[in-house]
Amino acid sequence: MESSNRRIRTPEEVVARYLTVRAATEHLASRLSPEDQMLQSMPLCSPVKWHRAHTTWFFETFVLEPLGVRAVFPHYRHLFNSYYDAIGPRHARPKRGMLSRPSFEEVGEYRHIVDRSMQDQLLTLGKQELQELVPLIDLGLAHEEQHQELLLTDILHAFHENPTLPAYRGGPSTPSVRIPAAQKRSRAFKAFDGGLVEIGASGHDGFVFDNETPRHKVWLAPFQIATALVTNREMKAFMAAGGYRTPSLWLAEGFDFVQGHGIEAPLYWRRDGDGWVAFGLDGLREIADDEPLSHVSFYEADAIARFLGARLASEHEWEVVAATLDRSGNFRDTDALRPLSPPQDGDEVAQMFGDVWEWTRSSYEPYPGYRPAEGAIGEYNGKFMVNQRVLRGGSCLTPRGHVRASYRNYWHPETRFQMTGVRLAVDAQGARAEGESSS
Amino acid sequence: MESSNRRIRTPEEVVARYLTVRAATEHLASRLSPEDQMLQSMPLCSPVKWHRAHTTWFFETFVLEPLGVRAVFPHYRHLFNSYYDAIGPRHARPKRGMLSRPSFEEVGEYRHIVDRSMQDQLLTLGKQELQELVPLIDLGLAHEEQHQELLLTDILHAFHENPTLPAYRGGPSTPSVRIPAAQKRSRAFKAFDGGLVEIGASGHDGFVFDNETPRHKVWLAPFQIATALVTNREMKAFMAAGGYRTPSLWLAEGFDFVQGHGIEAPLYWRRDGDGWVAFGLDGLREIADDEPLSHVSFYEADAIARFLGARLASEHEWEVVAATLDRSGNFRDTDALRPLSPPQDGDEVAQMFGDVWEWTRSSYEPYPGYRPAEGAIGEYNGKFMVNQRVLRGGSCLTPRGHVRASYRNYWHPETRFQMTGVRLAVDAQGARAEGESSS
Amino acid sequence: MESSNRRIRTPEEVVARYLTVRAATEHLASRLSPEDQMLQSMPLCSPVKWHRAHTTWFFETFVLEPLGVRAVFPHYRHLFNSYYDAIGPRHARPKRGMLSRPSFEEVGEYRHIVDRSMQDQLLTLGKQELQELVPLIDLGLAHEEQHQELLLTDILHAFHENPTLPAYRGGPSTPSVRIPAAQKRSRAFKAFDGGLVEIGASGHDGFVFDNETPRHKVWLAPFQIATALVTNREMKAFMAAGGYRTPSLWLAEGFDFVQGHGIEAPLYWRRDGDGWVAFGLDGLREIADDEPLSHVSFYEADAIARFLGARLASEHEWEVVAATLDRSGNFRDTDALRPLSPPQDGDEVAQMFGDVWEWTRSSYEPYPGYRPAEGAIGEYNGKFMVNQRVLRGGSCLTPRGHVRASYRNYWHPETRFQMTGVRLAVDAQGARAEGESSS
Amino acid sequence: MESSNRRIRTPEEVVARYLTVRAATEHLASRLSPEDQMLQSMPLCSPVKWHRAHTTWFFETFVLEPLGVRAVFPHYRHLFNSYYDAIGPRHARPKRGMLSRPSFEEVGEYRHIVDRSMQDQLLTLGKQELQELVPLIDLGLAHEEQHQELLLTDILHAFHENPTLPAYRGGPSTPSVRIPAAQKRSRAFKAFDGGLVEIGASGHDGFVFDNETPRHKVWLAPFQIATALVTNREMKAFMAAGGYRTPSLWLAEGFDFVQGHGIEAPLYWRRDGDGWVAFGLDGLREIADDEPLSHVSFYEADAIARFLGARLASEHEWEVVAATLDRSGNFRDTDALRPLSPPQDGDEVAQMFGDVWEWTRSSYEPYPGYRPAEGAIGEYNGKFMVNQRVLRGGSCLTPRGHVRASYRNYWHPETRFQMTGVRLAVDAQGARAEGESSS
Repeated sequence: MESSNRRIRTPEEVVARYLTVRAATEHLASRLSPEDQMLQSMPLCSPVKWHRAHTTWFFETFVLEPLGVRAVFPHYRHLFNSYYDAIGPRHARPKRGMLSRPSFEEVGEYRHIVDRSMQDQLLTLGKQELQELVPLIDLGLAHEEQHQELLLTDILHAFHENPTLPAYRGGPSTPSVRIPAAQKRSRAFKAFDGGLVEIGASGHDGFVFDNETPRHKVWLAPFQIATALVTNREMKAFMAAGGYRTPSLWLAEGFDFVQGHGIEAPLYWRRDGDGWVAFGLDGLREIADDEPLSHVSFYEADAIARFLGARLASEHEWEVVAATLDRSGNFRDTDALRPLSPPQDGDEVAQMFGDVWEWTRSSYEPYPGYRPAEGAIGEYNGKFMVNQRVLRGGSCLTPRGHVRASYRNYWHPETRFQMTGVRLAVDAQGARAEGESSS
Repeated sequence: MESSNRRIRTPEEVVARYLTVRAATEHLASRLSPEDQMLQSMPLCSPVKWHRAHTTWFFETFVLEPLGVRAVFPHYRHLFNSYYDAIGPRHARPKRGMLSRPSFEEVGEYRHIVDRSMQDQLLTLGKQELQELVPLIDLGLAHEEQHQELLLTDILHAFHENPTLPAYRGGPSTPSVRIPAAQKRSRAFKAFDGGLVEIGASGHDGFVFDNETPRHKVWLAPFQIATALVTNREMKAFMAAGGYRTPSLWLAEGFDFVQGHGIEAPLYWRRDGDGWVAFGLDGLREIADDEPLSHVSFYEADAIARFLGARLASEHEWEVVAATLDRSGNFRDTDALRPLSPPQDGDEVAQMFGDVWEWTRSSYEPYPGYRPAEGAIGEYNGKFMVNQRVLRGGSCLTPRGHVRASYRNYWHPETRFQMTGVRLAVDAQGARAEGESSS
Repeated sequence: MESSNRRIRTPEEVVARYLTVRAATEHLASRLSPEDQMLQSMPLCSPVKWHRAHTTWFFETFVLEPLGVRAVFPHYRHLFNSYYDAIGPRHARPKRGMLSRPSFEEVGEYRHIVDRSMQDQLLTLGKQELQELVPLIDLGLAHEEQHQELLLTDILHAFHENPTLPAYRGGPSTPSVRIPAAQKRSRAFKAFDGGLVEIGASGHDGFVFDNETPRHKVWLAPFQIATALVTNREMKAFMAAGGYRTPSLWLAEGFDFVQGHGIEAPLYWRRDGDGWVAFGLDGLREIADDEPLSHVSFYEADAIARFLGARLASEHEWEVVAATLDRSGNFRDTDALRPLSPPQDGDEVAQMFGDVWEWTRSSYEPYPGYRPAEGAIGEYNGKFMVNQRVLRGGSCLTPRGHVRASYRNYWHPETRFQMTGVRLAVDAQGARAEGESSS
Repeated sequence: MESSNRRIRTPEEVVARYLTVRAATEHLASRLSPEDQMLQSMPLCSPVKWHRAHTTWFFETFVLEPLGVRAVFPHYRHLFNSYYDAIGPRHARPKRGMLSRPSFEEVGEYRHIVDRSMQDQLLTLGKQELQELVPLIDLGLAHEEQHQELLLTDILHAFHENPTLPAYRGGPSTPSVRIPAAQKRSRAFKAFDGGLVEIGASGHDGFVFDNETPRHKVWLAPFQIATALVTNREMKAFMAAGGYRTPSLWLAEGFDFVQGHGIEAPLYWRRDGDGWVAFGLDGLREIADDEPLSHVSFYEADAIARFLGARLASEHEWEVVAATLDRSGNFRDTDALRPLSPPQDGDEVAQMFGDVWEWTRSSYEPYPGYRPAEGAIGEYNGKFMVNQRVLRGGSCLTPRGHVRASYRNYWHPETRFQMTGVRLAVDAQGARAEGESSS
C-alpha cells in the first residue's frame, strides 16, 4: 500500500475513520443470523463470521502486535490468517465453514476488544509514530472495505444454494429507472486520441494499493469507448442467437468452460416459464432489460463483446477515460445492491464508477518497476499476478470512496459470483487502418 | 420393518414412548449451539439440525400425511427427504450444510408442531387403526434412534475439522476401568458347535427391521469366538510391527485404501510426542491401552485380525453366540460415550452388546426370501444391499434397547467415522482339518 | 490352486498341454498388429502385448526361477508383475500402454525363450519333482487361459475407442440361430428342492483354484431357476418401459451409477436410426433379439431381474444346478465370439456353460475354512474378496474345458466390458410362504 | 498468418521448400518404431503418428480441398482435426493414442498421396493463383515445423513413462562445451535505453504468424538484460537453498503448483546418489552445470529469477534486444538436441536464439489492433490468448530459420515438458529510482 497524502491527520480523525469503517462491517452482518454467518458455499467464498474475524486479525497482526500488544486469543493467529505465508501456517481455506467455534458472540467480542485496543493505541501514540502508522491503518481499512463487498457476494452465493432462496435484504426493492422506449438508441461510443499517457497512481491521491504503482508511461493507440454498459437486453439477444453454443465467439478456454459446466446464462439467472428471473440480494426478481448485465465471467464478457462487434477496453484505456470523470456512481450506500439503469442516455461516458466491476482485456501484471512492500504486507497483491484479469470501477456493492481511476481489482477469468459486467471499446478507425497496413 | 409383538399397547403407552424418544434427540442436541448444529464436514455426515428435521419429516411424511394432516411447511418435503425416491426429488446430500434457513428455532418449532399433531392423532385414532399404525410408529422411533447415534458420530467428525478440537461433552470424563497387569492374559476363545442353525428375527421379538427377516436356516461349521474385543494395545502392536505397511496382511483394496489416504492409525488418533492421543466426544485424551479399539474401517479390522492369527466372525456366528446372551452393555445411557475396558476378564464372551459395533466378515445381503416393505418405506434397507459389510451389537453411542441379536447394521468397508471395532474368531480345529483335507 | 487329480502324467503329456495353451495365446494375438497390441483404453484393461508378456513372466517367476533358471531380462520382473506384492514393486497398471519397448518382436522372443526353457526343465526333471510341479504348471495354464479371455475383452474395449470401429475378426459372422416366432414362449423355470447341499470343488476334479475350496455344507431353501438366459428382446422391453430411469427397479448405488454415467443401454449398444446396433469382435452388427443379453453390469442384471419379476440366482443355487449338467456350450472354439440363441427352447436348463458369464446375487467371499496358498501364489485370489460379485459358467470367449460347476469368476458390480449376462431365479412357493409367515 | 515477402517464388522453389520440410518430419519419425509412434503419455502430448497425419490433414483441408481435390480418406477429416471448430467435430484429444488404425504404414501412404497431390497442384496452378496460395503454404510449413518440435518433446515425455528410459537418439552424445573455472564470472547484464519502440513484425520479414501483428508502438522504461541464460548450476544453488520450499520466492499459484505436485527439481531431473542426472533425447546423462537450465515452468522461472535478485524480461524488452542480433544459435540441425554451454562468456547478449525457449513475464495477449485471419485459419492463434505466457527465441529442438525476433510462442505457466529456460532482466537504475519516487 502507498499513502502519500501529505495532510497530517489528528488522532481523533484517524480513530473516527477507523470506527466508521469497522461499524459498517457489523451493520452489513447484522442482517444475518449466526447460522447464516457460518455458510461457506465454495472454497473461494468465506463465511461472514470469518470475514468479521479476519479483518480484525489483520489489525491485530499488522498493527497491534508490532506495537507490543498481546494477542487476544493466540490461536486466532492460525484460524484467521488468510494467505500470509510470512505469518505462518493457517486453517485450510475450504474448511472455514467448519468453525462453529469461536461462536458468533466470541467473534463479536474479539472485534470489540481489538477496536478498543486500537483506539487506546491511536490516542496514546506520539505524533510522529501515528503518522508513520497511518498508511498501515489505511491499508487495513481498505482491506476491510474489500471484505465488506466479499461478505455480500459470498452470502449471495451461499443463499443461492438454499432451495428456499432467502433474501439478504427483504422489503420493497429499489425501483429500476425505466427508460422510455423512444429513448433507446443504438450504442454510442466516444473517441479518445491515445498517445503517450501516464498510468498509475500519481502520488497525490491519498491511500493507494501498491499494485497501482509506480506511475509510468504507456503508449496508447486511438480508441473509442462505449458510453454505456452492456445490458441484460443485449445478453438476451446473445442467448437468443445461440451465443453460448457458437465457438467462433469465444476464446477456446472460454468455450470449454461454458460447455464443461453447462452454462447457458449468467450466474443467478434461471428460467421462469418462457422468460428469465434473477436471484439477488433482495431475492428473486424479474430481470430488467435496461439494467446493466452482471455476474458474467471474463469469458462471457469477451464473447458478448465479440458478438456486439467490439472488444473489451484495456485497463489503460479505461483509466485514461476514468481519470477525466468524477467518482460518483451507484455504490453500496444507495442500498440498491444491484446495478441500475443509467439515469440518462447521454453522449458522455457514464457508469464508469459503481454499478458493476468492468472486465478489461488486460491481464493482471505488475507495472514496470513495481516492487511489493517489505514483509508480510508485501503478500497483499503481488503474489497473485498471474492468470487473472483486471477489473475496474467498483460496483453497487463497493463502499463509496473505496475506488478511484487507478484502482485495480482482479479475478480469474472464470469468476462469476462477483458483481461483474461489461464495457465495450473499439479501435479507432485510424488505428485499425494502421494495423491493417502493416500486415 | 416388522412388528409382531402381539401385546396391545394403549394410546398412552404409544404416546409416552414416542415422546421419550423424541425428547432424547433434543437432549443430545441441546449441548450444541445453533452454529454447531449447522456443521456438515463431509457428504456422508449431516448437520445436527438436519437430523432433527429429517426425523420429524419421517413422521410427518409416513404417518401424518396418510392420515390427512396437512404438511406444516410444504417445502420441507423436499429439504428433509433423505433418499426416498418414491417421495420425490430432494435437496442434494452434500449441501445439507447450506441450510442456515430454516433456522435452529424454526426446526425446533417444526418438531414441536409435529409432536403435538402426532399426539393428537394417536390419542384420537380408533383402537384398530392405532394398532395398525404401531409398526410404523415403531419404525419411525427406531429410525430416530439411529439418527441419534449418527448425530453424535457426525458432530464428532465435524469438531475434528476444527483446529481447536471442541469437546461435545465437557467436564471430567468417565474413568477407564483399569486392569491390574497381572490379570492380562493371552486372548481367550470360546468354542461353538455350529450345525444347522436358525438366523434372523423370530417373530416374537417386537419391532424388527425388514432386513432381519425372514428367519431361515443356515449351516455353520464349528468355530471359536474371542471372549473380548480387540484393544488399543493390540492396535499399537500392529502399528509397531509395521502393519499398515505390510501388504500381505491386507485385502488388496484395503491396502490401496490406506496407502492412498496415507492412513497409519485409527481415525482420530494423533501423535503426541512419542505416543498417541485420541479425539473423542469428551475432547482429546490419552489412549487407554485396555479399552476396545474403535474407529477402524473394515479393511483395518480384517488386517488386524489376520495379524493376530484370526479372522472376523461371520454375522451368522455372531448372532448364534449373541442369542445366548442378555442385551446389557455399555450403551449411550451410561454417558461414557466411548468404549470401556471390560469389567472383568472372564471366560465368557463379553461386550457383544454396546461399546463398539463389530465388523463381521459378512457382506450385507438380503436373507433368502427377503422382501422389502411395500411403498416408499421399502426403500429403508433393501436398496443398499451391495458393497457393504454387516456390523453387529451396537455401540456406546447406541440407545439402550435399540439393538438385539438379530440386528444388522451396515457400512461401506472404508467407513471409519462410526464407532467400529473388532471381534475375532477362528475356525474350530475340526473345521480347519476338514478344510485342509479337501484341498 | 489345487490339483488333486491323482493320475500320473508323463513329461510329454505335460509339455504337450503346456505348448497347446501357449500357442492359443499367440494365435489370438496374431490377428492384431504391433500397434493394436499397444492399446490400453482404461486402467482395468491391458495391452495385448502386455498379456503375452505377463503370462510368460508368470512361468518364469513361479516355475523357472525356483528351479534356478536365470531371468531372461531382469527388468521384466518389474515391468510384467501384475499385482504380486511378495514379488516386489511393479510398473503402474494405468501405464501399461506406455511400453512401446520391449517391442512386439522382443515380447515374442521372450515367450520363445521361456517356452524352450520350460520344455528343457519339464523333460529333464526327476519324476517326483515333475509331479510336485504339475499343480503349479496347471495354475499357470489356467492363468494363461484367463488372460486369453481378457485379451479379447480388452481389445474389444480398445477398438471401441477408435471412431472407425475396427473388427477384431473380419469375414462373414456366424449366423444367429433363428427361432420361429411360434416357438417363442413365456419364460420357463425349473424347480429344485434345496436342503443341505455340498458346495465347492470335491477334490476329484483335477485342477481347481483355491477359491473353490474347501468343499462345505450349505443349507438351501427350495428355488426355481430359469431354463434360458435373459435376451436382448427383454432388454429392449426394459428400455422401452423406462427401466433405466425408474429408481424402484434398482439398488441405490446402481441407480447412481447409471445416472452418473448417463447409461441408457448395455455397453457397445448404439442407436441406429430408430433401432440399435451393437459393436463386437466382428464389428458393428444388428442386435439379434433372441440372443442372450451381454455387456451389462451387476446393477443392470439386478434391475432387469426385478423388472421381470424375478431375482438373480445365488452362486450356490447355480452350482447345485450346474453340477447336474455336462460342461458343453458355446465356448471360444466355436469361433462365434458372441453369445448365440439357444439351439432349442426346451424344458431343461440350458446355456449354463458358455455364451455369457452369469451374474449371481452372491458377493465374492472366502468359503468357510478357506486358506490361500503359501507365498506369492497366495495372492492369486484371496486378496480380492471384497466388493465383488461372483459370476458363473464361462462365456463364448472362454476356452473350452476352462470352467466347471465349482468355478468362481468375480468382478466389481459396475463391470460392463466383460461378456456378462443374466440368469433369473425365483424363490419356491414354499420358501416364499415361509418367509412371509415369519414377518 | 501473414506473408508479405514480395519476391515472387517459382513453382519449383515452392515445391522444393515444401518437400524439404515434409521430409524433415519423416526423418525425425524414422528413428521410432510403429509402436513408439503410438504413445500418448498425457492429453497435452500427441502420438508421433498423429503429428504426421495431422500436419498432412492441414494441407489437405486448407489447401487441397478449396482447390477441389477430393479427400483421400474422408474420415480423416474427423480423426486428425486438432482444434478447428469451423471444420467440424473431432476425435477427442486425450484419445489420440487409441488410434492403432490407421496404421503406421497407412499414415505414411496418406502423407505420400497428399504430397504428390500438392506437387501436382503447385506445378499446374496459374502464376497468380500460386502467388495467392503461397501465404497458406508458408503457414502450413510453419505449422509442420512447430509439430516437428512437438514430436520431439512429446516422445521425450512418453519415453520418460517407460521404466527402461529408452533414448530417442542413441550413440555418443554431443560433448558439452566446458568452461574453465577461471572464466566463470558473476552474471553480466547489458543496459538498454527503452523509450518509444516499435514491436511486432514489420511487414518485410517474409512469413509471420498473425499474432506477431500489427506492428505497433510501445513505451519501454530503461532496462538491463542478462547476457547469458540461467544455468543448471544456478538451479542447484536454488534447490540447495530450499528454493522450492520458500513461499516468499513464488507467485501464490506457483507455490501451490509445486507443493501440490511434489515438485522439487526441474522435469526429467532425478536423484542419483547424492547428485542429479537428467533424462533427455539421448537418454539419462549427468547434468552439466554450465549448460542452460531447461524444462522449468513459468512459475519456477519466475521464482529462480527472484532468487537471483532479478526478474524475467518482458516480451517487448526481449524483442528490442533480439532485433539487434542475428538469428544464429543452437537449433535442431546441430543435432545436439539439448541446450549447450555458451561458446564464450562475453559482454554481448548471447544465446537469444536457440538452446531454450525463454519464458517472459508477459502474458499472451493480442497486440493492439490485432485481427485474426478470416475463416477456420483464424483459429490458429487468436483463440488461445488467455492464461498463457509468451516465450521467445526458439530452442535446440526448433528448426533453424523457424523463429525470428518478433516470433511469439506461448504455453500455460505450469508447462514443463517443453524446452523452456530462463533469461533474466532488471530495471535500470533510473527506472527503479523513478518507480520508488512515485510511491
